[in-house]
Amino acid sequence: MEKQPVIEITAVGTELLTPHFQDTNSLVLTQRLNGLGLEVAYKTITGDKWDLLTASMRDSIARSDILILMGGLGPTKDDLTREALASVIGRKLVFKKELYKAIQGRFSRRGIDMPPINKKQAYVFEKSSVLENKNGTASGLWLESQGKIIILLPGPPHEIIPMFDESVLPRLEKFRKNHIACQVLRVAGLSESRIEALLSGFYPLEKHINLTTLAKPGQIELRISARSTKDQESAQKSVSEVVEKIKAVLGDLIFTFQGEDLEKVIGQELHRRRATLAAAESCTGGFLGHRITNIPGSSEYFLEGVIVYSNKAKTRLLGIDPDLILRHGAVSHEVAKAMAEGIRKKASSDYGLAITGIAGPGGGSPEKPVGLVYTALSLEGNTHVERNQFLGDRSRIKFQASQKSLDMLWRQLFQSG
Amino acid sequence: MEKQPVIEITAVGTELLTPHFQDTNSLVLTQRLNGLGLEVAYKTITGDKWDLLTASMRDSIARSDILILMGGLGPTKDDLTREALASVIGRKLVFKKELYKAIQGRFSRRGIDMPPINKKQAYVFEKSSVLENKNGTASGLWLESQGKIIILLPGPPHEIIPMFDESVLPRLEKFRKNHIACQVLRVAGLSESRIEALLSGFYPLEKHINLTTLAKPGQIELRISARSTKDQESAQKSVSEVVEKIKAVLGDLIFTFQGEDLEKVIGQELHRRRATLAAAESCTGGFLGHRITNIPGSSEYFLEGVIVYSNKAKTRLLGIDPDLILRHGAVSHEVAKAMAEGIRKKASSDYGLAITGIAGPGGGSPEKPVGLVYTALSLEGNTHVERNQFLGDRSRIKFQASQKSLDMLWRQLFQSG
Repeated sequence: MEKQPVIEITAVGTELLTPHFQDTNSLVLTQRLNGLGLEVAYKTITGDKWDLLTASMRDSIARSDILILMGGLGPTKDDLTREALASVIGRKLVFKKELYKAIQGRFSRRGIDMPPINKKQAYVFEKSSVLENKNGTASGLWLESQGKIIILLPGPPHEIIPMFDESVLPRLEKFRKNHIACQVLRVAGLSESRIEALLSGFYPLEKHINLTTLAKPGQIELRISARSTKDQESAQKSVSEVVEKIKAVLGDLIFTFQGEDLEKVIGQELHRRRATLAAAESCTGGFLGHRITNIPGSSEYFLEGVIVYSNKAKTRLLGIDPDLILRHGAVSHEVAKAMAEGIRKKASSDYGLAITGIAGPGGGSPEKPVGLVYTALSLEGNTHVERNQFLGDRSRIKFQASQKSLDMLWRQLFQSG
Repeated sequence: MEKQPVIEITAVGTELLTPHFQDTNSLVLTQRLNGLGLEVAYKTITGDKWDLLTASMRDSIARSDILILMGGLGPTKDDLTREALASVIGRKLVFKKELYKAIQGRFSRRGIDMPPINKKQAYVFEKSSVLENKNGTASGLWLESQGKIIILLPGPPHEIIPMFDESVLPRLEKFRKNHIACQVLRVAGLSESRIEALLSGFYPLEKHINLTTLAKPGQIELRISARSTKDQESAQKSVSEVVEKIKAVLGDLIFTFQGEDLEKVIGQELHRRRATLAAAESCTGGFLGHRITNIPGSSEYFLEGVIVYSNKAKTRLLGIDPDLILRHGAVSHEVAKAMAEGIRKKASSDYGLAITGIAGPGGGSPEKPVGLVYTALSLEGNTHVERNQFLGDRSRIKFQASQKSLDMLWRQLFQSG
């Protein structure tokens, strides 16, 4: 099997080196390349300063087989991509009359005279192919130098993406190495190192298979991809085999085999069972309700929520005995239990979730530190309560608390027979 | 004046070379570096394959004076940053007992045994400084090699950003080139083109001053920065002059001069007045409550919220006449008004906010399309209702609805004398 070409995507533009702008073109190009079984090895962002730009090009051409340069093909003095590359690879730029006329035509169709500065867009490399730009004046260019392929493309998304699809992808088809299949599994309530330990027997994987784990607070994502030189089916088969092995180890800890959010998986199951849910939140302040209602159609199973920030609200909205709060404190096993039972009863729902805790940064004490959160799930004939000690800032504690309570409901729906 | 050092930021992570993930840490780091008058020359993304990773490091160290490496410091087999750099610069990694104990301590505080694989996070370079990680087990490292500075930082945003601020920035202070002052103003409820028109007389600005506008849904940010080679005061003076001019034009449309979120500005004012707030949400599903309670100390003024997704909940929790809902529909001027008045009365709060609308993608009709949202504010003796037609997907509609209702409260607090 031939080696996969090393592909690098470079975005040229000083604004992409500020805190305010991000290159998104490369995400689209990557998706298209992945479709051919090709992976991106490097992404680079560089500005429009000559020395930095040429140094970056020199490195990229040395280490990569295919270099895709995006941006810097405009008419202004800051647009240096053509000139910088000419200097790096030592190849001449020549004036192309047909291109000049095409650019002029673009302007005249809009009833405007071509500004003189646009003339520079009619210069192309000797021994290069021009890639037509149907949406702008900057043509793309395809050239080869010392066995490397260099592709110059314009920066604006509505110009580069059609050009890539129409003129670049067909020329890259000959590099199609592989058919690629990918599947995303997610697990809640386990640490990344715990999962790594459970999966340690899997390594080393066969060379055509890739398994990556990605930890987010309260959730681990397992991304399995496989490539096949034969066909899509073989790639899918390899992925499925790994998924089956992971299933044998992690079993019903996996809450999705399709990369879905926990709130979506739960929503689908509640919908299927025609079961209903209500939530009582204190420290999450509505974030649990927000997540549940991010799912289109959630009004079918989510009846209501209450954000009982004050103790008075806990009593009035959930019927919690003020004495209970006084005795145990608002952040306690007892109050979490009463909240879950209270909201379930008041809303007449099948399930009631409750969260009470200390999101910080203030409000903690030695006995009840910031991050202490009780989560509770009430259902017919039973109420589960868990004590959690989360780490992180206010927003992470809110996220983890909501994740944990969704995880409790998920386990109830899927693991209790 | 000495030359500005060439700074490169490299993000390490195969997931950042897929269409699904984007590095955002570099934006924050860039913002902090800009604060020292330093610019970023290159950004690179590379995966966790040994050959590609080491090639990238080699190029970066050759062309840059300061290399910031982000990610790949975790405990798994995919985390290669330490080992790859050791091989590139030919420096040993040594086991550090204190660090090992600190990592163990982190786990034991959570009542968990340290998984054996985490041991590798206790290895550091000879002749390097350890940068403390208060939010994770991956320490940062600062080292110098052949006159270049190399900084290794963890990937998760809540780990890298505090570490950068506390341990990296102070060490970079010696490279400070300019004194930079920056101020961020925010305006709600105006379009970007309207603001551009109002500010058109400001351009061209002096060379050392920069004014950028950044449109987000429901909010425009004006970012004014100025640099001075002399001192911080001169830079601040230039910024203040522009801010005064903007104030003269936009007046009390500006809700913050300190880049704060609307919910924070409102919270401070409610706190100052010792006034209280309660919220009744339908289509935002808790998102308004979530935003209000993102502000530490919000329990002082936010009493409670209800998420009245079902009509039954609207009646039971807010006392809304079922006939009113039947006659006008749940998404109507009348129901929004009754919700705001209902929550204010039930919670005995000074202000009551309410939102009812169609977040989509389903549930729209020709008379009541997706994006139609009524927002209402009730206060002593008066209730305001506004009809809004928002564009975008479910999450954008939820955001804009929450923003609009906060904006109504803000205007009430600050503009009605």
